[in-house]
Amino acid sequence: MKREATTNYSEDYSIISDRMRNTKPSFIREILKVTENPETISFAGGLPNPISFPKEELKESMNRIVEQYGDKVFQYSTTEGFRPLREWIANRYKEQYHLSVDADDIIITTGSQQGLDLMGKILINKGDKVCIEKPGYLGAIQAFSLYEPEFLAIPLLEDGIDLELLEETLENNEVKLLYTVPNFQNPTGLTYSKEKREKLCALLERYHTVLIEDDPYSDLAFEQESLPYIGAEKLVNSVLFGSISKIITPGLRLGWICTKNAEILKQVIVAKQASDLHSNIFSQYLIYDYLIHNDLGKHIDAIRKLYKQQSDAMLLATEKYFPKEVKVTIPKGGMFMWAELPKGMSSAVLFEMALKENVAFVPGNPFYTEEGEVNTLRLNYTNSDATMIEEGIKRLGRAISRCAI
Amino acid sequence: MKREATTNYSEDYSIISDRMRNTKPSFIREILKVTENPETISFAGGLPNPISFPKEELKESMNRIVEQYGDKVFQYSTTEGFRPLREWIANRYKEQYHLSVDADDIIITTGSQQGLDLMGKILINKGDKVCIEKPGYLGAIQAFSLYEPEFLAIPLLEDGIDLELLEETLENNEVKLLYTVPNFQNPTGLTYSKEKREKLCALLERYHTVLIEDDPYSDLAFEQESLPYIGAEKLVNSVLFGSISKIITPGLRLGWICTKNAEILKQVIVAKQASDLHSNIFSQYLIYDYLIHNDLGKHIDAIRKLYKQQSDAMLLATEKYFPKEVKVTIPKGGMFMWAELPKGMSSAVLFEMALKENVAFVPGNPFYTEEGEVNTLRLNYTNSDATMIEEGIKRLGRAISRCAI
Repeated sequence: MKREATTNYSEDYSIISDRMRNTKPSFIREILKVTENPETISFAGGLPNPISFPKEELKESMNRIVEQYGDKVFQYSTTEGFRPLREWIANRYKEQYHLSVDADDIIITTGSQQGLDLMGKILINKGDKVCIEKPGYLGAIQAFSLYEPEFLAIPLLEDGIDLELLEETLENNEVKLLYTVPNFQNPTGLTYSKEKREKLCALLERYHTVLIEDDPYSDLAFEQESLPYIGAEKLVNSVLFGSISKIITPGLRLGWICTKNAEILKQVIVAKQASDLHSNIFSQYLIYDYLIHNDLGKHIDAIRKLYKQQSDAMLLATEKYFPKEVKVTIPKGGMFMWAELPKGMSSAVLFEMALKENVAFVPGNPFYTEEGEVNTLRLNYTNSDATMIEEGIKRLGRAISRCAI
Repeated sequence: MKREATTNYSEDYSIISDRMRNTKPSFIREILKVTENPETISFAGGLPNPISFPKEELKESMNRIVEQYGDKVFQYSTTEGFRPLREWIANRYKEQYHLSVDADDIIITTGSQQGLDLMGKILINKGDKVCIEKPGYLGAIQAFSLYEPEFLAIPLLEDGIDLELLEETLENNEVKLLYTVPNFQNPTGLTYSKEKREKLCALLERYHTVLIEDDPYSDLAFEQESLPYIGAEKLVNSVLFGSISKIITPGLRLGWICTKNAEILKQVIVAKQASDLHSNIFSQYLIYDYLIHNDLGKHIDAIRKLYKQQSDAMLLATEKYFPKEVKVTIPKGGMFMWAELPKGMSSAVLFEMALKENVAFVPGNPFYTEEGEVNTLRLNYTNSDATMIEEGIKRLGRAISRCAI
């Protein structure tokens, strides 16, 4: 029985799965392409400043691990990841957050993005209801979308997700999971308050909702104090994500899943083996060696200090150059600021204007699960120096004024 | 509305997706665990001999790329992969196989295993019919299983897949895709003849069936001649996989997808971005630098020569120690030999016997899409020296004899 097929060489769309047909092409990819012009000051990407890459120290570690471990750094390895690295991560949680996790509770992933894909794989049936912040992290929206859930987006307020609306949603729907970025959220830069964390935990426990806490940014706090996690160790169905991408290097694609839920761990291992067998083992040895031979805390302090300066520069510039009607969030850490344009103004239209002024950002659209015009946008401050930030925001302010006319 | 949930801390199976419930736990994982005993001679894994890891050359390249490219080797990068590496791969296909592919037709993946996951994601709807060799590569069975196809396994004969049965199957079913390892197949070591390749190509074209040719082993031919690919450049819906795992290092998890089908390329990029953003960029620079500064052909010749010796040693040992009734394939390249025990003998039972003799292999079971006892098994010869091979096959011969009583 012949498959029905189009004959055009490059467009046999009939072979493509339904899950892909329902996926929007990546908006941000297209945006990053148009911002490649070297004249353009880009606040669009989410790139860490290269100061966070300890090049010389990593070079030392590379040479050391080849000497010390030989063939092992190049051979196939275990799906769970390099055990000493998993131990190191568990110990850090013990020290920083007093969590009683150990190496067995950690699985190394190919970046946190793979963690998202794996959680989608092991949890989401087509049509399952998934709560996410509105606006929410676009990488999570993309990863989960391929498992065809029904998204229920819950507004994010200054101190965290809207609990009243969430409770109503949990009451009226069988919700499988809530995905959240509790610290210096992507895209808004907002952080959940201690009180909201506690109430959210109690709420999720009551409804047996799975919680994914994605935390790549907590180390980038401008002030030292870090808040306890929402569900880690408290909720049965709770998963915590971590990553080295923002504090050492994103290029090696190393993150991890931390959970004490044995069923989730078991399923994640099966799904990960089917996805890429294991994460790059050379890189796992490399990062482990770097961590035991260097002072990570000191390294992170330098990144924090720089990002605080850059965030301050951007905040100051928005005060100076943005029309009064534009609201911005005030970051206390992380990599992003979120701006709200006057009602009715389209950030997609502004984007076109801004490109003419040689400045770029990410229009809010990909951070929402619904289609439609939005008046919000994300600004990244970590990959431009203070002078570029001032100049870029000046140009953007000009574009906003021209848009308003 | 509360989700129904079990209350046991570690066993809340109710949250797990259907696709995982239908997936068998990884058989081979369990096997590899029991073979960790240092007294055991293991022919179970599929590990390359460490001779294939050019450690010193890679160390030189590491230092060079950090010097030469600086921050770029540690920063986020593009989903498609490092362009010069993609060009290098395309050029090699041009030179070796006269394929007219270029860098745009290559997407770097996190090992070929990720290629399998991505193809499953973009092609397979639940219930879609997928043809695979019987026995077939277990990594493909695992990866595709998560997209819930109906497998139609077609026997693999000495010279390739059974064409008559395949044609009958294509005629009676709407088959979405055929997955094949045409050179030194995993698990059997068998290679498709030139004639069979041509006929298969014509057949698949007639039925518009998507073809995945997975080719990690062609460089490991004991004799030089390599046969043309089955569908690459000939079939519209054709995808070719390649990998550095067997010729440089598997630990860096680098493979690639090669296709001239623009729709497949587009979808793979969207799916890959959702899966891990991009593959480890440091490793892509590293391998590119290694490739342009070293003679890969010479390096591969040394691996071939060694594997030929090891394969010969295993063949000789099976002649000496296996009962006459046991049939084995005669490898002309690759990493595996396939053995067929007398009818009625169970390779799972033999496995238990063999462990007592301190020798291990992979029973045939995970290479079949159906459950049930089998009398076949896979033997790997690349990761043991000739002496160990002789001793291991001697032990295995003893176990077979005891099994037959």
